[in-house]
Amino acid sequence: MKILVINGPNLNLLGRREPGIYGGTTLEGIEKELALLAQGLQVSLSFFQSNHEGEILDRIHAAAADGTAGIIINPGAFTHTSIALRDAVTGVAIPTAEVHLSNIHARESFRAHSYLAPVAVGQVCGFGPQSYLMALSGLVALLKKGTMTS
Amino acid sequence: MKILVINGPNLNLLGRREPGIYGGTTLEGIEKELALLAQGLQVSLSFFQSNHEGEILDRIHAAAADGTAGIIINPGAFTHTSIALRDAVTGVAIPTAEVHLSNIHARESFRAHSYLAPVAVGQVCGFGPQSYLMALSGLVALLKKGTMTS
Amino acid sequence: MKILVINGPNLNLLGRREPGIYGGTTLEGIEKELALLAQGLQVSLSFFQSNHEGEILDRIHAAAADGTAGIIINPGAFTHTSIALRDAVTGVAIPTAEVHLSNIHARESFRAHSYLAPVAVGQVCGFGPQSYLMALSGLVALLKKGTMTS
Amino acid sequence: MKILVINGPNLNLLGRREPGIYGGTTLEGIEKELALLAQGLQVSLSFFQSNHEGEILDRIHAAAADGTAGIIINPGAFTHTSIALRDAVTGVAIPTAEVHLSNIHARESFRAHSYLAPVAVGQVCGFGPQSYLMALSGLVALLKKGTMTS
Amino acid sequence: MKILVINGPNLNLLGRREPGIYGGTTLEGIEKELALLAQGLQVSLSFFQSNHEGEILDRIHAAAADGTAGIIINPGAFTHTSIALRDAVTGVAIPTAEVHLSNIHARESFRAHSYLAPVAVGQVCGFGPQSYLMALSGLVALLKKGTMTS
Amino acid sequence: MKILVINGPNLNLLGRREPGIYGGTTLEGIEKELALLAQGLQVSLSFFQSNHEGEILDRIHAAAADGTAGIIINPGAFTHTSIALRDAVTGVAIPTAEVHLSNIHARESFRAHSYLAPVAVGQVCGFGPQSYLMALSGLVALLKKGTMTS
Amino acid sequence: MKILVINGPNLNLLGRREPGIYGGTTLEGIEKELALLAQGLQVSLSFFQSNHEGEILDRIHAAAADGTAGIIINPGAFTHTSIALRDAVTGVAIPTAEVHLSNIHARESFRAHSYLAPVAVGQVCGFGPQSYLMALSGLVALLKKGTMTS
Amino acid sequence: MKILVINGPNLNLLGRREPGIYGGTTLEGIEKELALLAQGLQVSLSFFQSNHEGEILDRIHAAAADGTAGIIINPGAFTHTSIALRDAVTGVAIPTAEVHLSNIHARESFRAHSYLAPVAVGQVCGFGPQSYLMALSGLVALLKKGTMTS
Amino acid sequence: MKILVINGPNLNLLGRREPGIYGGTTLEGIEKELALLAQGLQVSLSFFQSNHEGEILDRIHAAAADGTAGIIINPGAFTHTSIALRDAVTGVAIPTAEVHLSNIHARESFRAHSYLAPVAVGQVCGFGPQSYLMALSGLVALLKKGTMTS
Amino acid sequence: MKILVINGPNLNLLGRREPGIYGGTTLEGIEKELALLAQGLQVSLSFFQSNHEGEILDRIHAAAADGTAGIIINPGAFTHTSIALRDAVTGVAIPTAEVHLSNIHARESFRAHSYLAPVAVGQVCGFGPQSYLMALSGLVALLKKGTMTS
Amino acid sequence: MKILVINGPNLNLLGRREPGIYGGTTLEGIEKELALLAQGLQVSLSFFQSNHEGEILDRIHAAAADGTAGIIINPGAFTHTSIALRDAVTGVAIPTAEVHLSNIHARESFRAHSYLAPVAVGQVCGFGPQSYLMALSGLVALLKKGTMTS
Amino acid sequence: MKILVINGPNLNLLGRREPGIYGGTTLEGIEKELALLAQGLQVSLSFFQSNHEGEILDRIHAAAADGTAGIIINPGAFTHTSIALRDAVTGVAIPTAEVHLSNIHARESFRAHSYLAPVAVGQVCGFGPQSYLMALSGLVALLKKGTMTS
Repeated sequence: MKILVINGPNLNLLGRREPGIYGGTTLEGIEKELALLAQGLQVSLSFFQSNHEGEILDRIHAAAADGTAGIIINPGAFTHTSIALRDAVTGVAIPTAEVHLSNIHARESFRAHSYLAPVAVGQVCGFGPQSYLMALSGLVALLKKGTMTS
Repeated sequence: MKILVINGPNLNLLGRREPGIYGGTTLEGIEKELALLAQGLQVSLSFFQSNHEGEILDRIHAAAADGTAGIIINPGAFTHTSIALRDAVTGVAIPTAEVHLSNIHARESFRAHSYLAPVAVGQVCGFGPQSYLMALSGLVALLKKGTMTS
Repeated sequence: MKILVINGPNLNLLGRREPGIYGGTTLEGIEKELALLAQGLQVSLSFFQSNHEGEILDRIHAAAADGTAGIIINPGAFTHTSIALRDAVTGVAIPTAEVHLSNIHARESFRAHSYLAPVAVGQVCGFGPQSYLMALSGLVALLKKGTMTS
Repeated sequence: MKILVINGPNLNLLGRREPGIYGGTTLEGIEKELALLAQGLQVSLSFFQSNHEGEILDRIHAAAADGTAGIIINPGAFTHTSIALRDAVTGVAIPTAEVHLSNIHARESFRAHSYLAPVAVGQVCGFGPQSYLMALSGLVALLKKGTMTS
Repeated sequence: MKILVINGPNLNLLGRREPGIYGGTTLEGIEKELALLAQGLQVSLSFFQSNHEGEILDRIHAAAADGTAGIIINPGAFTHTSIALRDAVTGVAIPTAEVHLSNIHARESFRAHSYLAPVAVGQVCGFGPQSYLMALSGLVALLKKGTMTS
Repeated sequence: MKILVINGPNLNLLGRREPGIYGGTTLEGIEKELALLAQGLQVSLSFFQSNHEGEILDRIHAAAADGTAGIIINPGAFTHTSIALRDAVTGVAIPTAEVHLSNIHARESFRAHSYLAPVAVGQVCGFGPQSYLMALSGLVALLKKGTMTS
Repeated sequence: MKILVINGPNLNLLGRREPGIYGGTTLEGIEKELALLAQGLQVSLSFFQSNHEGEILDRIHAAAADGTAGIIINPGAFTHTSIALRDAVTGVAIPTAEVHLSNIHARESFRAHSYLAPVAVGQVCGFGPQSYLMALSGLVALLKKGTMTS
Repeated sequence: MKILVINGPNLNLLGRREPGIYGGTTLEGIEKELALLAQGLQVSLSFFQSNHEGEILDRIHAAAADGTAGIIINPGAFTHTSIALRDAVTGVAIPTAEVHLSNIHARESFRAHSYLAPVAVGQVCGFGPQSYLMALSGLVALLKKGTMTS
Repeated sequence: MKILVINGPNLNLLGRREPGIYGGTTLEGIEKELALLAQGLQVSLSFFQSNHEGEILDRIHAAAADGTAGIIINPGAFTHTSIALRDAVTGVAIPTAEVHLSNIHARESFRAHSYLAPVAVGQVCGFGPQSYLMALSGLVALLKKGTMTS
Repeated sequence: MKILVINGPNLNLLGRREPGIYGGTTLEGIEKELALLAQGLQVSLSFFQSNHEGEILDRIHAAAADGTAGIIINPGAFTHTSIALRDAVTGVAIPTAEVHLSNIHARESFRAHSYLAPVAVGQVCGFGPQSYLMALSGLVALLKKGTMTS
Repeated sequence: MKILVINGPNLNLLGRREPGIYGGTTLEGIEKELALLAQGLQVSLSFFQSNHEGEILDRIHAAAADGTAGIIINPGAFTHTSIALRDAVTGVAIPTAEVHLSNIHARESFRAHSYLAPVAVGQVCGFGPQSYLMALSGLVALLKKGTMTS
Repeated sequence: MKILVINGPNLNLLGRREPGIYGGTTLEGIEKELALLAQGLQVSLSFFQSNHEGEILDRIHAAAADGTAGIIINPGAFTHTSIALRDAVTGVAIPTAEVHLSNIHARESFRAHSYLAPVAVGQVCGFGPQSYLMALSGLVALLKKGTMTS
């Protein structure tokens, strides 16, 4: 079972960027923890990060062709502004879990709204790097139960 | 480590209530799965369900006295209407994870807003019964790391 | 055919409370008129009034078990604030008619919105105690025709 | 006692128009049922339907001169757009009951607002053709009690 | 002259709850200060606190029967969400003063709106425990002047 | 301890202006009652009334130089329109209590919002001339306790 | 110089309709006063009243062909709902003065907005029948000065 | 194949009305161009223009009986105000294309919203008289493919 | 009969200020025309212009003492921002006519709202200097009929 | 005459993506039909599709240099979010027709708003692939008439 | 070349007022720096500060007569509330640069809106006292180029 | 001291694009003027322009590594739509000045809001190419004073 992990704009700065909000872990650190968990769950992971909306769209389109079973995505700021991302996810019809490091409901009001969430399986936010691990285990559990309707 | 699991109004109907949205699992079924996971995580769980806002407030207040380390709560409809619930959680200052079975962003627009979320650690929604398991493992992981600031 | 008649908060004050708006009839007076009509319609009525949202939810849940065929409810102020009430009604899937003594469209603007109405069969308002009688005869007529889809 | 029953635009299509929403009964069918009920209540009915707002205004004005004691009106789409209709009703000061076949609170959001309702006696919606019968019996009961203040 | 002092949800936590906002005085401490002032004003006080909206409604209804001349109420979070509380106060027609410890205008925007205030005599907020003393002396002064129109 | 009492526009009309809303007491009457209370509290009062926003700003600025310990202000209509007044109060950092004769929450909706309130200590409204006395005793009590943080 | 005076829906009821708001003068009474004034101003008047929006549009279109120099219109409720009326006035490019008997700013909020006003020369409201006389003398004065740019 | 072409209020003024916005072509000119195109497409056209909303509703109802296969409509100002028109189109269930001469998105903000569009096949705007020709060829193409679901 | 004519901020610039909007007549020119008309109407006029809100309030207060029977006011920009002006007018209870040179509905949206209008007798706008003459003759006519209720 | 046809994000998925909304035709299929029509119209077409907003901007800028006479664009999700796209179109001042396959007024409310439309020539939506053909023939017709003002 | 520098309400408090936001420099300090820069730019400066809106309007009017070529204004709180200020600036048609010490976009939301900005040349905010120097050099540069259109 | 000057989408069109709004100077022209000023200020400049949001983010990230002391950015249309840009600036914590050629407050309302401004040092708009020079001198002055807190 192939799972694609996508990180959106500025998440390459993790560890350096506003540590009061995003914590001190780097993106590489998170990816390592995810890889470890994936081994335990017996799924294979691909990682992708980009600051370019278009590249993320292209990557999601590619996933439709490479047999990806599920997507874990932290869209960063694109969460609140990219309808194209939402359309890409509905376009490829791959079950997708939305993840946020910070509690988006405890920040500026414009961060509470997600264009992606209504077409995602669900959303996990506020648990820091742990959010990704929770999303991975949750999404894989659902996929294994086969109860997912895209 | 004691964790309190609270379920709000109408969640006693689970399994019977709108299965298209909430699935066929009963609340007892979810509590069993949680108990199993808790054993693995070596934490003790208490369960509480009520259709009475006042009883939920009383129960949260009691948690401040009985050494509860964390709260998992699915506030049901109180998510969107109860400021008292929010005040209770900030009042007792116990780290709290908000959980929803359904994807609240894919339903009526009034369900997207949570009074509780801004004062919770984070929110998990849309993964069905799995949401609870994700929240429990996530919250316990954070509590164990001791990085939680109430 | 069993019909449950529920009255929400402050309706126990009827006859005493703001008679300019709600009239001089007491709740007992209304229930007597309803009982008389029910006899004519050959249906049995149960009455329930509470100022506690939780008790109303519990009573609706109980109705799902006791063979109640329809609910007449005047939710009082809960009309405008209780999503839990709405969820209880959809949860038990019993056809429900919403009733108001006063014309809620001719009062404060916040009284024009009902969380319940979109999941009720319909709404009757403004006819004073007569509103209940209209709702009872209307709901029973629909139930007898068997055209009600919950 | 003379009662005028007015139906607004597109209600001549009943039985044919969107039967999923409005049911399969024709306007003539509804008028027959009303006539039967009127006999029982010993009131006389006049029926009027028009797709022209101006004709409906003219008819309401005429009612002020012909001794009409009450009006039952389903304004159709004019409910949400015609302030002129509202002004006509307040202008002639005849007690008026607003009726809708469908549950206007369960449809597009613009259908929830009625310009007429605040100046009507009350509103009945969602009970299909039964809504008219309920409104007729309710309005007549109030008129007979003489408790109606225009 | 009997005055009823009501405290709403979470106010039992006073002294413990968010002392940065609500101060270090307990509810018992406030009640003691009020009792002292009441002696000086020669009025008798009853105290009531509950986290249950329904119990507060019941208590207000009871006040209508026990000769209560005035109510001092800090509705806590119910200030912003309970129309039922507003209706209870208008229902019993007892002059009521609304009190808040914190300055509700200096906090989250949703705390600035009070459903109760428009039907209360007036509102005092921001003076900490002193707010209650101010409200008591003010309400009693008005009641003694007999200038209160319910 | 010096307390400055400021009255804004049109309050010089008191006793004459809309007595149904503002009562029959003149501003001089209120100032006399305040002077009496101040004697009891052993504080000295200065009074200032102006219909000119600029003069009120100048007077507040002057207070920063003359050792004023607290301000009681009824900003009248400037409550809802003057950000300059708000800035003056934060600029001089003198604890300020906002007062209104009428219940601003029971009038036109634009009167419910105060630009000043979020930077004031607190607000008293609806108790007529008594509002000033309550604010004076409350503000002095806080100032004497020394718990005021500007 | 030909001036057309148009009255919209329900204005035929004048004298009878809500005299507390619209006064006791009939439309014929107003037209007589206007005729008298027109004689003094040496302009000729045509009068038109209709409850049908379409007839008013047709009449305005006709005015473009019959040499009408200016229009006085009280659009009644169409003021707030008819964009077609606005388009007719811009379409024929005849200078038009908007008139209201009542003060539309002192009534329901939906009456404060006029679709017509932005394309009219100006608006007169609140002076009762006098409003028409003011509009007629004002419009004629402007037309005689030739300063009107359509 | 019969196609009905409807033009709403003020479109009879075309060529004369605000040529800067609507161009110099008359309605007759447009109808001639449409007739020519219809010949090429081998469909028959009927034309209808009215300033009366009711007449347009009546004409649409009539189309349901005379075998009309599709409707081209420029509702003029009714686009933004007539829910009755929308209901007529859904009532007769004839595929309908909405047309505008001007670019409604480049004008007053109230012209951007169409009550009709959500129930039409589609919308063409901004191409002047060409808009009609585009709509006709497009609608006929869809009807011939038989892919239209009403 | 004494009539006070008040002009608000920037109206001293008339003739110079944005002649495209306000025309080329000076304030003195307007006052001369008004004086001439006043002679004909046999009323005496006082003129007052100020750029200071406070001075305008003071002048209105003074009018209450000097037997002023009516006020003609063009509040300029204070129309849209000064609640104090509104309160002054209701405070002195002198019938007041609001005047604007330009058509405030055809300009920036913030100019369409008047805080004063709801408490004025009526409003005249868009007729240039003629607006003042219309308001004077209209107000005097009403005052002479004695039908004015303040 | 050179026409540029631009397709925005996710439109490369056509035929695969949500066929219930977008139909079963691929983008290549649409381009073929367009090429055929272009031959008939004797214009030359270039095609461009990208999921990258920046690439689309670059392509539009290039069109200003290569003699492109008109642009047909389906901006996909960028319709609702890209002000940069709007600025590019106004920047190059090439007449542009906006196209949508689906009826954007019949979907989520955020799809009804287009940042591009107000600066485009016009908009065609809802006719499926036919929308492109309609836009091409319409735009070319306008360009040939030379009536286009950029 | 004469430049007028205007400072609005509370700016006389600079250095004392909320130094965390406004810094420790006094208004005199800023004026000295400006004078120095003016010397370099060979322009003459006049300074004006007032807490009275009316005085600022009077001063701007005077500038129209004394040959002032440009205005630098920090309107303080009047930025957000004074339409009269905006009208004065358009009335005298002198190029005006708006200045703010603090970043008004990083504070309370009501500070982000400026009534003046749309009629000013431009706005500089957030650079502390430097903002004034930037505005002066920028405005003078534009005036010298003669590219300013009022 | 290194300063990075970033220009966003469509700014490469300067000189060609809407000269009525943006003037006739090219981007190269502006960069030359900036280079000249930089020499005087003894700072080094890098220039970057892109129509790709992702490239701008990448460039800002790179600045965090290359010792850039400050950023001057004209984000063009991204000002109003890119939260990612805002996050990049807070992520690298380099003091940033926002610049606009045109007066964004005098154009379409959506251009008045900047996602970037609240996290920038300040904003300069409306002075044409001069805006950049003002921002450069202002930012450098602040950086040299060392009073900048990121």
